[in-house]
Amino acid sequence: METKNDFIYTDWMLIENQFNPEELQTRETIFTIGNGYLGTRGSFEEGYPQALSATLIHGVYDDVPVVYTELANCPDWLPLVVIIDGDRFRLDQGKILKYNRELDLHQGVLRRSVRWCSPIGKTIDIRFERFASLADHHVLAQICTLTALDFHGLVEIQASINGYPENKGFNHWEGLDQGKIDRGFWLHSRTRTSRIHLGMAAKITVSGIEAALQVNTAPGYPSINATFFCEPQQTVTVEKIVTVFTSQDVSEPVSAAQEKLSRLDNYISLHDANQQAWAEIWQQSDITIEGDSKAAFAVRYNLFQLLIAGSHQNETVSIPAKTLSGFGYHGHIFWDTEIFILPFFTFTQPEIARNLLTYRYHTLNGARRKAGHYGYQGAMYAWESAVTGDEVTPRWSLLNDYYAEDVRIWCRDREIHISSVIPYAIWYYWRVTGDDEWLKDYGAEIIFDTAIFWSSRVELNPLTQHYEIRSVIGTDEYHELVHNNTFTNRMVQWHLEKACTIYDILSSKYPDKIAELEQKLQLSAEMRNHWLKIIDKICILYDSETGLIEQCEGFFQLADLNLADYEPRQKSIQAILGIESTNKHQVLKQPDVLMLIYLMRESAEFPYNRKSLEANWNYYAPRTDITYGSSLAPAIHAILAADLGKTQEAYERFMQAAMVDLEDRRGNTNDGIHGASAGGIWQAVIFGFAGIQFTDTQPVAHPHFPPGWTRLKFKLYWRGRWHDFDLRPISLPSPHPHIQGVIFDLDGVLTDTSEYHYQAWQKLADEEGIPFNRQANEALRGISRRASLMLIIGNRKYSELQIQEMMERKNNYYVELIENITHNNLLPGAVSLLDNLRVAGLKIAIGSASKNAHLVIEKLGIIDKLDVIADGYSVQKPKPAPDLFLFAAQQLGIAPQQCVVFEDAAAGIEAALGAGMWVVGMGQPERLGNAHIILPSLVDLTWEKLQAKFRDFALQNRA
Amino acid sequence: METKNDFIYTDWMLIENQFNPEELQTRETIFTIGNGYLGTRGSFEEGYPQALSATLIHGVYDDVPVVYTELANCPDWLPLVVIIDGDRFRLDQGKILKYNRELDLHQGVLRRSVRWCSPIGKTIDIRFERFASLADHHVLAQICTLTALDFHGLVEIQASINGYPENKGFNHWEGLDQGKIDRGFWLHSRTRTSRIHLGMAAKITVSGIEAALQVNTAPGYPSINATFFCEPQQTVTVEKIVTVFTSQDVSEPVSAAQEKLSRLDNYISLHDANQQAWAEIWQQSDITIEGDSKAAFAVRYNLFQLLIAGSHQNETVSIPAKTLSGFGYHGHIFWDTEIFILPFFTFTQPEIARNLLTYRYHTLNGARRKAGHYGYQGAMYAWESAVTGDEVTPRWSLLNDYYAEDVRIWCRDREIHISSVIPYAIWYYWRVTGDDEWLKDYGAEIIFDTAIFWSSRVELNPLTQHYEIRSVIGTDEYHELVHNNTFTNRMVQWHLEKACTIYDILSSKYPDKIAELEQKLQLSAEMRNHWLKIIDKICILYDSETGLIEQCEGFFQLADLNLADYEPRQKSIQAILGIESTNKHQVLKQPDVLMLIYLMRESAEFPYNRKSLEANWNYYAPRTDITYGSSLAPAIHAILAADLGKTQEAYERFMQAAMVDLEDRRGNTNDGIHGASAGGIWQAVIFGFAGIQFTDTQPVAHPHFPPGWTRLKFKLYWRGRWHDFDLRPISLPSPHPHIQGVIFDLDGVLTDTSEYHYQAWQKLADEEGIPFNRQANEALRGISRRASLMLIIGNRKYSELQIQEMMERKNNYYVELIENITHNNLLPGAVSLLDNLRVAGLKIAIGSASKNAHLVIEKLGIIDKLDVIADGYSVQKPKPAPDLFLFAAQQLGIAPQQCVVFEDAAAGIEAALGAGMWVVGMGQPERLGNAHIILPSLVDLTWEKLQAKFRDFALQNRA
Repeated sequence: METKNDFIYTDWMLIENQFNPEELQTRETIFTIGNGYLGTRGSFEEGYPQALSATLIHGVYDDVPVVYTELANCPDWLPLVVIIDGDRFRLDQGKILKYNRELDLHQGVLRRSVRWCSPIGKTIDIRFERFASLADHHVLAQICTLTALDFHGLVEIQASINGYPENKGFNHWEGLDQGKIDRGFWLHSRTRTSRIHLGMAAKITVSGIEAALQVNTAPGYPSINATFFCEPQQTVTVEKIVTVFTSQDVSEPVSAAQEKLSRLDNYISLHDANQQAWAEIWQQSDITIEGDSKAAFAVRYNLFQLLIAGSHQNETVSIPAKTLSGFGYHGHIFWDTEIFILPFFTFTQPEIARNLLTYRYHTLNGARRKAGHYGYQGAMYAWESAVTGDEVTPRWSLLNDYYAEDVRIWCRDREIHISSVIPYAIWYYWRVTGDDEWLKDYGAEIIFDTAIFWSSRVELNPLTQHYEIRSVIGTDEYHELVHNNTFTNRMVQWHLEKACTIYDILSSKYPDKIAELEQKLQLSAEMRNHWLKIIDKICILYDSETGLIEQCEGFFQLADLNLADYEPRQKSIQAILGIESTNKHQVLKQPDVLMLIYLMRESAEFPYNRKSLEANWNYYAPRTDITYGSSLAPAIHAILAADLGKTQEAYERFMQAAMVDLEDRRGNTNDGIHGASAGGIWQAVIFGFAGIQFTDTQPVAHPHFPPGWTRLKFKLYWRGRWHDFDLRPISLPSPHPHIQGVIFDLDGVLTDTSEYHYQAWQKLADEEGIPFNRQANEALRGISRRASLMLIIGNRKYSELQIQEMMERKNNYYVELIENITHNNLLPGAVSLLDNLRVAGLKIAIGSASKNAHLVIEKLGIIDKLDVIADGYSVQKPKPAPDLFLFAAQQLGIAPQQCVVFEDAAAGIEAALGAGMWVVGMGQPERLGNAHIILPSLVDLTWEKLQAKFRDFALQNRA
Repeated sequence: METKNDFIYTDWMLIENQFNPEELQTRETIFTIGNGYLGTRGSFEEGYPQALSATLIHGVYDDVPVVYTELANCPDWLPLVVIIDGDRFRLDQGKILKYNRELDLHQGVLRRSVRWCSPIGKTIDIRFERFASLADHHVLAQICTLTALDFHGLVEIQASINGYPENKGFNHWEGLDQGKIDRGFWLHSRTRTSRIHLGMAAKITVSGIEAALQVNTAPGYPSINATFFCEPQQTVTVEKIVTVFTSQDVSEPVSAAQEKLSRLDNYISLHDANQQAWAEIWQQSDITIEGDSKAAFAVRYNLFQLLIAGSHQNETVSIPAKTLSGFGYHGHIFWDTEIFILPFFTFTQPEIARNLLTYRYHTLNGARRKAGHYGYQGAMYAWESAVTGDEVTPRWSLLNDYYAEDVRIWCRDREIHISSVIPYAIWYYWRVTGDDEWLKDYGAEIIFDTAIFWSSRVELNPLTQHYEIRSVIGTDEYHELVHNNTFTNRMVQWHLEKACTIYDILSSKYPDKIAELEQKLQLSAEMRNHWLKIIDKICILYDSETGLIEQCEGFFQLADLNLADYEPRQKSIQAILGIESTNKHQVLKQPDVLMLIYLMRESAEFPYNRKSLEANWNYYAPRTDITYGSSLAPAIHAILAADLGKTQEAYERFMQAAMVDLEDRRGNTNDGIHGASAGGIWQAVIFGFAGIQFTDTQPVAHPHFPPGWTRLKFKLYWRGRWHDFDLRPISLPSPHPHIQGVIFDLDGVLTDTSEYHYQAWQKLADEEGIPFNRQANEALRGISRRASLMLIIGNRKYSELQIQEMMERKNNYYVELIENITHNNLLPGAVSLLDNLRVAGLKIAIGSASKNAHLVIEKLGIIDKLDVIADGYSVQKPKPAPDLFLFAAQQLGIAPQQCVVFEDAAAGIEAALGAGMWVVGMGQPERLGNAHIILPSLVDLTWEKLQAKFRDFALQNRA
């Protein structure tokens, strides 16, 4: 796996120090640069046989057979040919004496320096540098520096635009005109069928010598040639500045290009502006990892590839599956964008996220045409989408074999979950950003019209009276035309629930808008009732006993196979077994049930819970073709493995995703960057290793650091403000503690308000007619209010508004109940321990997340025994963030390593460990696994006994 | 129809004197030039928006999606850009003051002269000329002559090769290298997947001024620029000579191109050599028509387009459906070549015909792979064929509509008659050329292995015990997946008959070869018996009562429709009704039963006979979509209509075919020349209007001249020598005959040996057990020996050897019988008429085709009454050729117009009319229609009475 990799990684720099022609196209992909308006592959300025040079501009599509439309490779701005005494500089001839290519992620700049000896023995140093300006998206800049080392001779530099670009042979452009300008030229081209006009202008500046300039206008290949004699050790620099506009940007792209070019400054100033723009972008989007330089670079690299692909200005385009870096999937847009890529932008560049989602609004009419074509109502989104939103998935995979059977691609007809996945993305964009205006103006219409589609797509089974969705492809594309795929069915149910919620919210907040949409979409009360019936009666293949979910009808009856039997292999199980046979086996291309569980993780909705996650992980993970199935899979497995504490497996999956392109793990990086995998990387770091979850008020980290990681630092934008995270590993404090301070959690340690929580939940459950009891309550320990409520209501259907209301109702009951607390509510042994510690000279603090802590302490009557109270108002980030305990220690004036924390909940133990403190876990060992010492209660505990236990622990852990 | 046509036609010149941009691509096709190695479309040297410039070289195919492979448009040798004081000469800007483009068919040269006023008002005359040398196929030449009319200024001429050619957008070439040479440059390209290398070299010569030359090597677009100042009225000439080789010609195409270029003389000498080569070609292949200049030019034009498409040297290539003149059908090869195009070459350029057929030998393995793929034995030829002979018909017609249903193209699987059509072509190539060696080395293996295919493809119907061929497409592609298509079944039957014959011939002549083939093809006696059984029992839907043939099972049950109801229309009936509905109607895309009848015409085999022709013509012709169905149809209808004496209809169909491209009758000439139609034109002239049929010894004309035609002159190569035809219309002699000579046919006029013929046939029939009687004998009148035998044996199966033997046997019986002739065998009135004429001073001759005439005359005892005997030894060409009567007249020393002929058979009457003589028909008027006077017998006839009858006739015909 690692053999191909001769890269050197620094913090921000990808360095290749030898040229391997076999890796040519792969490296062109890897060294792609861009600015969110266009992407340019890392092809050589002088060309190379078999090179796939490409500049792809967002939205510039043109017709093509079989796949309908594709991103048209635009005229190539790179050509810079250097001719030394008649010998053209080219790496397939002559001798390469030195070679270095580096991509500077921090500035978005690609550089190459080569020492080359020509076939007749003349040696030069050549340096190239290029960038697509992030400061001004229409500006492209190149510089070429030449030093003749051992000769004096005639040098000719041809700086061109190649008006014959090609999409693997197909040239989408008709040259309309071209002409000369001062020190340069311009070109006017038009796409063949979509008739998009493109204007480019270029000029060069030669410094270090007097050169004769001549413009040559070979049709479609305008060049400016600089010719000069150079002396040994003389250095000459050629700057080439190019501007580009299309008729999608301005009405007169040719004159716009010329005008902008005429106003541009020199290379250095353009370079500085670009650098500044990149610094701002990284300020929001960077992730710093310490202790694992390869992972640290790989994460940045993947984020870089996403950042150059997300459009800052254009809301009518989205990010293709292979970004703007290659020809794979023809620039078509999949669910990859919404599910895999979008979260990175939502949380770090929300304006770009908004553009990406608004693309789906502008393509709604295409989705409506597709629904109409298939005989459904509403909007049925294209599995592959381009300009109009009409379906552009090819019908056939046409092998160029005279007699092979053509393979029908059913995704266009049957992989319909896209129409619930886009609403999912909209919902979370809105939940994260609180962008009500956008929801009103764009998102709601999508959510409603896709819900209308679903209401026409489901079928009522007259025997079972369940709603079914038959003949679909779930996310696992190894199983085609299955019935009641749980991923699809549950996503539809979820989607209809949210559609109801949004309907309620908009009805109260924007009644005019709702009236408008009701009319436009024929969104009747009858329709909404239909949604409720579907929510209630849709078939979900869930075994509540085991938590196991069946992927689709009959999945468990399929033949099983042992994936290990097929190792080692270099291709997918489908490629080995064939489509038919794969379809008949329990082998997954990518997570399907597990994907559903992952998507429900963000708000801990059904079926996301520990039992279900474990049961389904154990069933499906070993049955997933994780190496050569889908590139979308490893990052998701990484997150769920991290969730399950399987840190090693999580890290393996994570690196599999992170290196997919840098190490060409799947052998198809030449087709372009794996955009979804890159987005999954961000999610794996944030949701997997940092373990970010969301309380009602903030994102909270529950870190699961891979081995070696010493720091993880990033920012999230959430509900109107930036949240900084700077996480450290949970490490063992020094073995001989000189404990000077004790920090007690309150609830479950000194007192037990869990009884009051229980009573409050019980009251709510009784009012709602939901079965609930003390035993059921045990499952709620350490779980957020929302997550607790979701567990209680289980499969029952409530709107988001109803859920909000229930959470508030329960809290009111709880606050009422704790009014009754007295001294008697202290747990056994608490008072005597507090007194004993105080006598022993230790400082004592309370570290409780509760905003009611002061009230409870007062009622308990222990306020005099405490030095510090840290409560829910003290810090922003709740446990498992270490902030609260660090705050308490600071207030006590004691170093974290000299504090011991008494905690009863996993999140609290994680927080204490994260703060670098000693931890005593109170209660059942199975949920306190990481605490240094575990005690059943405080009864009879003294400072002396505690010291002895720490001594024992240190001895045991010395080995 | 005629509105688009602004052409001027001279004998050899096609002249366009205004430029119409809307016709751009159509005219590019029409002005295609070539030399049998390559074709170059008539695109402008300076380019034009939407131009489809193309140079296609035989055999240079490259992979492409959907249609597997296509002829790759090669690097464009045409670009010659003229820049006048910064303004590029281009017809879409400035003013065209004069314009003339002409294609010289006699020399294969394309010329254009333009007087152009640039946007800033400078006027020049520019003349371009180009040709692809027929004298040396690797040489291409251009000349450009400029005269500045009203200015002096800077002129720059860029002469380039465009290394970015495209097949409607797709560029099959990778530029590998390029470089400079003296006054020029070279280019090295390679096709992407087929990896064919191409080398081109070009140089220019400027005369009339001193010009600065500079070579520019923009990657893939090498140019040489000539820059000079010119004065008003100064004329400058630029010659551009280009050489081209591919790795299919030589191992080092780049150096071959450079080397040849270095050895070439100037433009004028190359031009002269080319002219000489063309003169030789036309000497064999020309057809001269007088009296109809449009038809005369159109015929030459179509022949020109075939001549530039047939390869002189390469036997691994064939002629694509659209020749080398456009992108339609991607350069694939259909039955169009063998059935429509081949006869022109067989009869006028037999070496090219041999190459074309040998292509099918080289693609036999592809045909075997196809058979294997479909589960059959032997060789199953591709419906569309390219390099390997594997099937390259696309499976799908993919409409670029997001939701349209894709149309399955069944021709690849089901239009299987190609595998009997190729043997048909081989058989006739052999019959015409007598090329036994080729038959042995190439043709036989094809005929046998396709016969083996058929033996595995037919199915024995257990109920009827007939062999059936189910689920096919006949030649009429409006009916898909039909059963027992008569065209297919009869062609298979015919094919197996000929396979047996060839087996017999080779067995006796080349026993080693037969042994070799028996082993190679597993050609057992069992297999040959199987063939005989199939021949005997194959289902042929023929009604012997009416002569009507059903096109396929159930055809007569399909709904009928009146094509007139759909007029006027601009598209096919299938485009109007849709595929499904068309399939259900009795409407034909092209002749199917009639095509079968046409193919059986050459040797008058079943079902070619008058009754069947008439019956089926009357049924099928009105049901054929002759205008917008297939372009293959009109020429075939023209021939059959001529056969039926429907001269006007024949001419209409003929002109429809002849003008299909010159007037873009079908609106798709932009895709390339309709090659099959062009070949059909030749057949329509030769077999239709000249009515060429073949006796055992020679081709014979039976002219049916269209109105206005005064002369038809051509050559045919047949069985080792050239046969010249110089036909004149059958015109009425001067109305007042001064008859001085009388020529009597012998048989049926003075005596009746038809009785002896009858007796000879009867004896043969009795020996063979074939029912025959006097009534059946009537049908044999005036029909050749072979045709008579075929009528007698009807559906019964005989090998060619058996047929030969039976013809000889019958003749022996006949010769025996005429030994018994005496004076008593003279017909009533004969002796007294002979005596009466002699008394009246008339000269008397016998004009009999019989080689036994002298013998018969002696036996009859009338030798003293005659002045001249012309018999079967007197001339080469038998009746209906006029030669025999002309010979008799010459011997008599009397002008043809002063002779009267007594004849009883249609062929004799035609011969006499063709000789310009007066004709008395003896017998039933219905078969003597064109005779001037018809008499039941000679009884009581005198010279006086005869003169009176001629007087009456002249009076009747004066009005």
